[in-house]
Amino acid sequence: MSVGFHHGFSHSFPLRVYYEDTDAAGMVYHANYLKFAERGRSEMLRSMGFPHRQLAATDGVGFAVRRCLVEYLLPARLEDALVVDTTLVDVGAATLSLGQRIRRGEELLADLAVLVACVGRDGRPRRLPSALRAALTSEAPHAP
Amino acid sequence: MSVGFHHGFSHSFPLRVYYEDTDAAGMVYHANYLKFAERGRSEMLRSMGFPHRQLAATDGVGFAVRRCLVEYLLPARLEDALVVDTTLVDVGAATLSLGQRIRRGEELLADLAVLVACVGRDGRPRRLPSALRAALTSEAPHAP
Amino acid sequence: MSVGFHHGFSHSFPLRVYYEDTDAAGMVYHANYLKFAERGRSEMLRSMGFPHRQLAATDGVGFAVRRCLVEYLLPARLEDALVVDTTLVDVGAATLSLGQRIRRGEELLADLAVLVACVGRDGRPRRLPSALRAALTSEAPHAP
Amino acid sequence: MSVGFHHGFSHSFPLRVYYEDTDAAGMVYHANYLKFAERGRSEMLRSMGFPHRQLAATDGVGFAVRRCLVEYLLPARLEDALVVDTTLVDVGAATLSLGQRIRRGEELLADLAVLVACVGRDGRPRRLPSALRAALTSEAPHAP
Repeated sequence: MSVGFHHGFSHSFPLRVYYEDTDAAGMVYHANYLKFAERGRSEMLRSMGFPHRQLAATDGVGFAVRRCLVEYLLPARLEDALVVDTTLVDVGAATLSLGQRIRRGEELLADLAVLVACVGRDGRPRRLPSALRAALTSEAPHAP
Repeated sequence: MSVGFHHGFSHSFPLRVYYEDTDAAGMVYHANYLKFAERGRSEMLRSMGFPHRQLAATDGVGFAVRRCLVEYLLPARLEDALVVDTTLVDVGAATLSLGQRIRRGEELLADLAVLVACVGRDGRPRRLPSALRAALTSEAPHAP
Repeated sequence: MSVGFHHGFSHSFPLRVYYEDTDAAGMVYHANYLKFAERGRSEMLRSMGFPHRQLAATDGVGFAVRRCLVEYLLPARLEDALVVDTTLVDVGAATLSLGQRIRRGEELLADLAVLVACVGRDGRPRRLPSALRAALTSEAPHAP
Repeated sequence: MSVGFHHGFSHSFPLRVYYEDTDAAGMVYHANYLKFAERGRSEMLRSMGFPHRQLAATDGVGFAVRRCLVEYLLPARLEDALVVDTTLVDVGAATLSLGQRIRRGEELLADLAVLVACVGRDGRPRRLPSALRAALTSEAPHAP
C-alpha cells in the first residue's frame, strides 16, 4: 500500500552524510545516528499516512523516545550514502518498539533498539490512535 | 549592575568547543558559530534579568533572528576556549541590533551583525517589553 | 548535462524538515538554514561531478565559508518540504560567490549570500581546480 | 587532585539548555543528551589532565563510542540548568565503561551506560595510554 513500506514491517529510508553530520575525527558524530534513526521513523509514519503534524492535529499526540540502545559497528564518513531500515518489533498500548539499522550498502554501521511512547500535549502517556494501531497491525505478516 | 555585563553594553560569555561542534575538516562547522552567538545573546538577557522563559511567561514574547551577517576570519578547533562578546548596537521599537565577536583570547575568529525581532506567540512583531527596554537603555553609555 | 543543474547556474535541492531541525519556538532553528544551504552547495558540486571527497583526494582542496549573509523572511516548520536553490554569482581565482534561497513551494523563507574560499589541507587559499573552474564557467549563460 | 573529580570516580559537569538543544515538542531533542554526555566525558578527561588534543598529540589516540544505552525519564526544557554526572564503571585494556546521569537538581532526567574504545588514527583499537590508565586506576576507591 504505502511507498517504501514492505511486508513484515520494514521501512527503508536513504540519506546522504553532509559536513554537518561529521566531527573532527573525520566520521559521523555518534549522536547523529540517532537523528538519522528519527528521520527513518518519521518517514515510516509518513509513508503509512501518519505524519507527525497530522497526528498532533487530529489526535493531539506525538512520540517521545523512552529508551534507546545503539551499537556502533563501523564509522560512516562524509558523503556516504546510507540507508535507515526500520522494523516494527512490538506494538504496546501506548508504545512502539522498533529495531533500526543504519547501513552503507550491505555494510551494517549501527544497530539500534528504540522504545517510543505515544504522549499527549502534556507529555503524559496516551493510547496509540486507533487508526495508527490498525495500520500498524494490519500490515503485519499473516499467519499461513 | 549585572554580572558579566559592562558599561557600553558589552557582555562576554565563555564556552568550550566539543566534538559536536566540529566537522570532518577538523574545525568548528560554520553554522555552529551562530549557535555560539545565540548562547551569548541568551546569557546577556539572563544576566540582565530577562531569561527567555520569563519573557515568554510574563510578556508572551520571544526573539526571532531576522538577519545575520557572519564573517569567518580564523577557524576554531576542538577544545578551544572561546569567548562570545555581545554589544548592543541599536534598540528599535520591536528589534535589537547586535554586534557579536567570537574570539580565542585576543584572536578574532568570527564577526557577526545580528538583527533580532521581538515577536509574540503568533510570530508577529511586538514592541519590546518596557522593563527590558528600560534595562537596555539605562545601561547605555551616558553623554558627558 | 547534470541532473538538477540548469542553465544560468541554478541548482535545486529538496529536503524535509525533521524534529532535529526545529526548536522550542516551534520552527526551524535559525542556524540550521545554514546547514540546509551547505547541503545545497554540496549537492550542486556533486551534480557537476565534484563531490567533496573527490576534490580532497584528487586536488587536496576543500571549501571554507568566508562570509554569509542570511535574511529570514518566513519560518519553516516541522515536516515542511523545502527546496534550496543555489545560483552561482561569481567565480574568483580562489573563491565562489553564491546566492541561495530556501523556499517552501513559492514562498521564500530565507535568502542567503555566501562567499566560500577554496582552501588546501593547511587551510590556506588555493586556486580553484581547473576542471571545476571549467565546469563552472562552461555552463554559464552565453552572451547572445 | 583534579577539580570537579571526586573519590569513587564521579565527575560532575554543569551546562545550560539553549534553543539549539530543544525541538518543536518544547523539550530537549533526545539525541542531544548524547552530546551533553560527551561534554561530560571530555571534561572528566580534561579535569584529569588528558584533554583530547593532548591524547591525540602525545599518544596518537582518541575515543570512539561503541555502545550507548539511554533511558529518558523526564524531559529537560529551555534554559534548564543541568548537571552531567560521570562515573567510571570499568577500565578494560582498550575500553572504558561509564555510567552517566543527566539531572536537574535532584531530578534524574536521563540515565546512560556508555562503552568507549580507545582507537588510533586508523580507527583501530589501541591500548589505553599508560599514564591515563594509571590516573584512572589510582583514583579508584581503595580496598580497606
